[in-house]
Amino acid sequence: MKLLRVGTVGAERPALLDGTGVLRDLSGLVTDIDPVLLADDAVLARIRTAAASGDLPPLDAAGLRTGPPLARIGKIVCIGLNYHDHARETGAATPEEPILFMKAPDTVVGPEDTVLVPRDSVKTDWEVELAVVIGRTARYLESDDEALAAVAGYAVAHDVSERAFQIERGGQWDKGKNCETFNPLGPWLVTADEVPDPQALGLRLWVNGELKQDGTTAEQIFPVAEVVRYVSRFMTLYPGDVINTGTPAGVAMGRPEPKPYLRAGDVVELEIDGLGRQRQRLRDA
Amino acid sequence: MKLLRVGTVGAERPALLDGTGVLRDLSGLVTDIDPVLLADDAVLARIRTAAASGDLPPLDAAGLRTGPPLARIGKIVCIGLNYHDHARETGAATPEEPILFMKAPDTVVGPEDTVLVPRDSVKTDWEVELAVVIGRTARYLESDDEALAAVAGYAVAHDVSERAFQIERGGQWDKGKNCETFNPLGPWLVTADEVPDPQALGLRLWVNGELKQDGTTAEQIFPVAEVVRYVSRFMTLYPGDVINTGTPAGVAMGRPEPKPYLRAGDVVELEIDGLGRQRQRLRDA
Repeated sequence: MKLLRVGTVGAERPALLDGTGVLRDLSGLVTDIDPVLLADDAVLARIRTAAASGDLPPLDAAGLRTGPPLARIGKIVCIGLNYHDHARETGAATPEEPILFMKAPDTVVGPEDTVLVPRDSVKTDWEVELAVVIGRTARYLESDDEALAAVAGYAVAHDVSERAFQIERGGQWDKGKNCETFNPLGPWLVTADEVPDPQALGLRLWVNGELKQDGTTAEQIFPVAEVVRYVSRFMTLYPGDVINTGTPAGVAMGRPEPKPYLRAGDVVELEIDGLGRQRQRLRDA
Repeated sequence: MKLLRVGTVGAERPALLDGTGVLRDLSGLVTDIDPVLLADDAVLARIRTAAASGDLPPLDAAGLRTGPPLARIGKIVCIGLNYHDHARETGAATPEEPILFMKAPDTVVGPEDTVLVPRDSVKTDWEVELAVVIGRTARYLESDDEALAAVAGYAVAHDVSERAFQIERGGQWDKGKNCETFNPLGPWLVTADEVPDPQALGLRLWVNGELKQDGTTAEQIFPVAEVVRYVSRFMTLYPGDVINTGTPAGVAMGRPEPKPYLRAGDVVELEIDGLGRQRQRLRDA
């Protein structure tokens, strides 16, 4: 299923994009797309049945904003340097184990919302990423099977990053990852049953129409199952937590000088196979 | 005012410790101590008036668990190496600007709840810290006055840390800071009016009755106002966000070998002048 949330900021209603591309209203079945729903198999099954039988009322998509597809995210764990090609372009050694950092849930905005270039920023950079949404509490997992069973679904994430804040301001990376609007998410939360192989997804990102990132999750150093299992040994994952699994090559930081960092007016578009497409215009904070 | 939350995990009720040490029930006035309350001057004033006039019903404290004093924390930003003496003991240079890292709100437990030593941990360490609780949205603040006006109050935080996870596992520090139960908070959220000088607070921590940390916030490299102002230039702070402002000297990592890291059965007690006292027993995860 493709679950989403549509409406104005803070007043989004739950919806579903059906197999024929029609937007359907879920507000008769659930109050929101949130951690409680993700952990509730019975309600998820009810949505699935209603969608299959055509019982869900259609929604007029015209003029409707798409919000982030998940409310009340608990935490966002991010994996650094998780693609072979991206590690090379940044000049970093291939990590021996996953690098973890964090973004606050308040950085999350909808897939077409404005992204703000922070004040005093000169190195705002793009990163298309596969986001993993957790549906089951995951604690000290032992196997890849357990890890994948904890995954509710997937989404497109834009892990916007300010490289000077991240790297040149005395540490840690979190300092350049948590500016407001720095985590566009969505358009959809695609349930795991519709993503049979999370290691075979193409990811692409354009800036002002020019293709900048064109990667595949097959290049991930630590695949999704290993990432979930690994993280669960350092922190407990709960339903509604999100893991941004890293970005492929092609970011501004990896390019020759003058590096083409983002500025107000730029338009970034990004997509992942089967997970939909985002488009953000940048504006100064 | 000393605001707190008492009751079983997830079912805490809001309460107030009055000037005579009597626990008072706030559940007739507010549903919880949460971000909405912290931003609502009118309701805070109503609580203050009711407390002064003796109108709040007493609560029998006997056998009541104390939970964390704040529900629905948005994010926890932590300052690394923020005391001159602690920077020295870890062998690190004095930071030129604040080091920022993050803890997830799901690490927060009550001040007397069990702390779990993570599996495979050999370097679980203690850190008593002054926690700053935000009451007003803080974004690109310019002055110390604005910064202090954004502070709702203060609390004792225990920034439990696994040093091997933090430092020896390929980065970033977050990896050793986000294990479950790693942020005991409370007992009270003490409103800012009762803390006239946050740079004049003694902090102490004992392990199994032996004094290990005995510091003062006067030793902070970056004082509270500067920390809030600084953080607000990298991320927007919202009501209900928490900043752990760093720990003074005396942690296990700073001691000669064999360093006395925490183990199951150890008891840690910590306190800050005017903010109350915590006590946790450690257990294996």
